[in-house]
Amino acid sequence: MKYEVKKQMYEGKAKQVFATSDPSIVMVHYKDDATAGDGEKKGTIRDKGIVNNKLSNALMQKLEKEGIPTHYVEEINDRDTFVKKVEIVPLEVIIRNVAAGHFSLRMGVPEGTPFKTPILEFSYKNDDLHDPFINHYYALALDLATQKEIDTITKYSFKINEILKKILLDANIRLIDFKLEFGRLPDGTIILADEISPDTCRFWDATTGAHLDKDLFRRDMGGEADAYQEVMKRLLG
Amino acid sequence: MKYEVKKQMYEGKAKQVFATSDPSIVMVHYKDDATAGDGEKKGTIRDKGIVNNKLSNALMQKLEKEGIPTHYVEEINDRDTFVKKVEIVPLEVIIRNVAAGHFSLRMGVPEGTPFKTPILEFSYKNDDLHDPFINHYYALALDLATQKEIDTITKYSFKINEILKKILLDANIRLIDFKLEFGRLPDGTIILADEISPDTCRFWDATTGAHLDKDLFRRDMGGEADAYQEVMKRLLG
Ligand SMILES: Nc1ncnc2c1ncn2[C@@H]1O[C@H](COP(=O)(O)OP(=O)(O)OP(=O)(O)O)[C@@H](O)[C@H]1O
Ligand SMILES: Nc1ncnc2c1ncn2[C@@H]1O[C@H](COP(=O)(O)OP(=O)(O)OP(=O)(O)O)[C@@H](O)[C@H]1O
Ligand SMILES: [Mg+2]
Ligand SMILES: [Mg+2]
Repeated sequence: MKYEVKKQMYEGKAKQVFATSDPSIVMVHYKDDATAGDGEKKGTIRDKGIVNNKLSNALMQKLEKEGIPTHYVEEINDRDTFVKKVEIVPLEVIIRNVAAGHFSLRMGVPEGTPFKTPILEFSYKNDDLHDPFINHYYALALDLATQKEIDTITKYSFKINEILKKILLDANIRLIDFKLEFGRLPDGTIILADEISPDTCRFWDATTGAHLDKDLFRRDMGGEADAYQEVMKRLLG
Repeated sequence: MKYEVKKQMYEGKAKQVFATSDPSIVMVHYKDDATAGDGEKKGTIRDKGIVNNKLSNALMQKLEKEGIPTHYVEEINDRDTFVKKVEIVPLEVIIRNVAAGHFSLRMGVPEGTPFKTPILEFSYKNDDLHDPFINHYYALALDLATQKEIDTITKYSFKINEILKKILLDANIRLIDFKLEFGRLPDGTIILADEISPDTCRFWDATTGAHLDKDLFRRDMGGEADAYQEVMKRLLG
């Protein structure tokens, strides 16, 4: 290991973040803990931490090759990865290709309806307020990000969507929607952070339409641990 | 009267719309009926129909002079006005200068907090779905409007905000936030429609901060009929 792991800085619902001997690097540890419904449902998904760590790292490396800067530095083991430490931009960026979940409920559009053009939306990353849906004018007015940052995040997000859709379709998986988080390096550069995994994406089998993501857990459908393994097998061989 | 009034086409919560002898013209009749909380609270505000009719017509005429196309054609009497018939774009456009109401609740920002830059937001005008908050990507994906229409509506809305803020401040009234509706003429031209009134705007006395709008009714504070008269007196003399 290039960096010595120091004390835990943060424990989230799915991951722990540790300081390292290099102040610009943190270590992320992926847990099997799963939550749903704004934290109301709690449980674990067997070996989810392994799948999410390996998958997120592999996808971020592919994105880097296509010109998207990411926080990925080095995978240490099945559950631990060094990443560039960022100041997280307090926006959750959601991209939707097909109606599902919350969107379908709010908008009365049946799950599975594809959109003519992808939808991008922002939520304000704030647990007390339950991550409310906002738009870019809110983000500017509330000083969550600058116009330039929002433009960069928007451009990257749509490009990430195109890249991921292709990678996934090659594995016979439809990318329905997903959530991204971006961060600022000390010099202000915007890079992709957090994770890309079946926790943060909706993946449907492109042939059968079967859920291959956390909706199996959210909706008490069962089979989530196997689905996570299946996604890893299809994408990482 | 230039046009003969024919049968009622629509009865809304605050207004009735009648066909006329000219298929491109409708007559709007302003009622005293008031609703709040998604139709849960129902009542009347004495002579509200008169205030809203006269005020909306006067403001739309001022906007026309500043280059905003509107549906206004001719005031017939205290409660009735001929307007250009449009196909309403199913978007409610909200502009916010200062945090209030729903925004304050959702975002945890105290009422009265001014924004660095005005916020524009869209709701999908759909009663069954309770006019959900959306963004312009939703509007495009769901075919509610074209990109060109959204650009025009956005440009007009910010300009209307600047014009109205000035007119109101001259009457010692702060424009906190307001809702607009736009429509399409048969040739596709976008024009401002519906109304601009204390029903659709938050007006605060610039000195005392007193509410001069429908919040008095929404929040059971009383004095709403007098407040509507006060706004009319200040703006129309
Ligand atoms: N490169 C990074 N540098 C610093 N923090 C990061 C980085 N990548 C992700 N994070 C943050 O680390 C935390 C990861 O933990 P986890 O995903 O379990 O959090 P969470 O329960 O989703 O809660 P929340 O995201 O609301 O804080 C998140 O807060 C995430 O924003
Ligand atoms: N120029 C116009 N041509 C055609 N329709 C119009 C025009 N201006 C406004 N309208 C529509 O006329 C109706 C006015 O009625 P009112 O404001 O009472 O409706 P409402 O109860 O607010 O309900 P909703 O706006 O949801 O239909 C609205 O539906 C409005 O969109
Ligand atoms: Mg997280
Ligand atoms: Mg109305």
